[in-house]
Amino acid sequence: MSSTPSGVALGIDVGGTKVLGVAVDEAGDIVARILEPTPQPPRPDHGASLADVVASVVHRLSEQQGVPLRQTPLGVGLPGMMRRDGILVFAPNLPSASGIDLAALLEPRLGGIRAVVANDADCAALAEHRFGAAAGHDSVVMITLGTGIGGGILIDGQLVRGGSGFAGEVGHMVLDVAGPLCPCGSRGCWERFASGSGLGRLAREAAMAGRLRLVVDAAGGDPEAVRGEHVTGAALDGDPEALALLDEVGWWLARGIANLVCVLDPSCVVVGGGMTDAAGFLVDSARRHLGGLLEAGELRTAVTVLSAFFGADAGAVGAALLAREAS
Amino acid sequence: MSSTPSGVALGIDVGGTKVLGVAVDEAGDIVARILEPTPQPPRPDHGASLADVVASVVHRLSEQQGVPLRQTPLGVGLPGMMRRDGILVFAPNLPSASGIDLAALLEPRLGGIRAVVANDADCAALAEHRFGAAAGHDSVVMITLGTGIGGGILIDGQLVRGGSGFAGEVGHMVLDVAGPLCPCGSRGCWERFASGSGLGRLAREAAMAGRLRLVVDAAGGDPEAVRGEHVTGAALDGDPEALALLDEVGWWLARGIANLVCVLDPSCVVVGGGMTDAAGFLVDSARRHLGGLLEAGELRTAVTVLSAFFGADAGAVGAALLAREAS
Repeated sequence: MSSTPSGVALGIDVGGTKVLGVAVDEAGDIVARILEPTPQPPRPDHGASLADVVASVVHRLSEQQGVPLRQTPLGVGLPGMMRRDGILVFAPNLPSASGIDLAALLEPRLGGIRAVVANDADCAALAEHRFGAAAGHDSVVMITLGTGIGGGILIDGQLVRGGSGFAGEVGHMVLDVAGPLCPCGSRGCWERFASGSGLGRLAREAAMAGRLRLVVDAAGGDPEAVRGEHVTGAALDGDPEALALLDEVGWWLARGIANLVCVLDPSCVVVGGGMTDAAGFLVDSARRHLGGLLEAGELRTAVTVLSAFFGADAGAVGAALLAREAS
Repeated sequence: MSSTPSGVALGIDVGGTKVLGVAVDEAGDIVARILEPTPQPPRPDHGASLADVVASVVHRLSEQQGVPLRQTPLGVGLPGMMRRDGILVFAPNLPSASGIDLAALLEPRLGGIRAVVANDADCAALAEHRFGAAAGHDSVVMITLGTGIGGGILIDGQLVRGGSGFAGEVGHMVLDVAGPLCPCGSRGCWERFASGSGLGRLAREAAMAGRLRLVVDAAGGDPEAVRGEHVTGAALDGDPEALALLDEVGWWLARGIANLVCVLDPSCVVVGGGMTDAAGFLVDSARRHLGGLLEAGELRTAVTVLSAFFGADAGAVGAALLAREAS
């Protein structure tokens, strides 16, 4: 692990709606941040507008920090299945970027600089392990809750990439073969239940069935207009029905974690991602349910389930750290 | 990796019904084998009768091969959750051995020799990676089909043990939250469907519903007496109903493999274990179903699903290899 004279590394996290850029110092602390909307080009532009925005964020961070790009590690996290050769082969929440090679697109825009690109949840896992909630743990599963569920896995402190580079796509574990259809083609994927879209779907089902009165009021009286934020808002106000629904989603979170514990037996599970307000409820609930869902749960060392230290910044911080470790 | 002057290592695989001992040469070939029934002590004997049988098999192999125990690596695979300190904390198919420390029990019976003990499916995974079907692959998932489903995982050629030592307990991934109850306490575990007991259960359900005429005949006319062997026998005779049932079990095998591919993205999945006759049908069927069950299946490098090279011997061979690598 080498570093620049200044010790600063730059990390960018590309999300479906926002591009977050950070400068991170040697201790893993964020010393600068820039947020831009993710471009939504009206027609396929093969990643050009995304590369323009990312390059602009990188140049501004570099100038703000006074660090020359040529001596500064630069990493970018992307939301989707990243092949080992750097192609983002599938990005359901960023369709305009599916198939692009962002490092190649950035190179001419950054004066020949080559960025390290990786899956965003892999970046988040690395950040949490190196300087966050999972520090000191050997085997770690990171789960990012957003529209879907992403994942990153570390064994003996090393990221698990997989044969094609697609390890950690945990949101598409099937938990309920007869469950609701997922855009991926399967039924009952974990992210149909324990994600932002899962919370919204379960809330609308409950609202349509006449439950969640206060939540429906908050959504303007229309059960079909209920979204996850309405549930979380009502829960923060102490609404028992909203709290019960979040506990149901928390059970689903625990059920998927239990599957991952069967497979990997991590000492630590970190839950992060963009569901900032709901995450606290869900993590508490998942912790309560997990022990009862594990084979021989009473014979195991308790698995620690923690909230991400870096919150929604974990992906950007981890991208910077990954680039620093690769440099 | 050191080895004895003779190059021979001894491996023992303790199963629910049989204890298999092998001597393995430097090339991973079996040069001797001894099979004994697993003792079924009438009351708790704290592992003493099992240790007696294992020690007897070890002494006989050592004498046959003319290899002094003190210079010969010795490994033992056990069917259950093996803690990192060597305690077999949970062994559903070998209840009399739950809680024992077999290495400690063997030591006085083997003149002070300390055996390497490990989970049997972990041993099998190692054997298949070092000299079997998964040779040359970096990331491997081994699945052993027997009464239940066991598993072993290698990443970058190294066994994944997990925080407590329980990684690879893949049979208790839940695929159907509303499915049949499992002795572990959960519903719809993978091994309720895609194991020997799963095959038997699905066959009895089909027989009770009036299907599987030839299979029921083979079971003496009683639908409740149908076992997996009757289905496999009828399938070998070409019975379309038996073949359809095996294809259903093969779909469940593929569904669980697809979950593991989401999580780990291995380049190779090896299927082994004791279901020797059925395994060929199941592996063929799982291969056909797998592509359609994977997220973005068409964008992935095809995952290779292979039958175990060492068949039911993989656990014993792997125990020997594990001991050799540890010596």
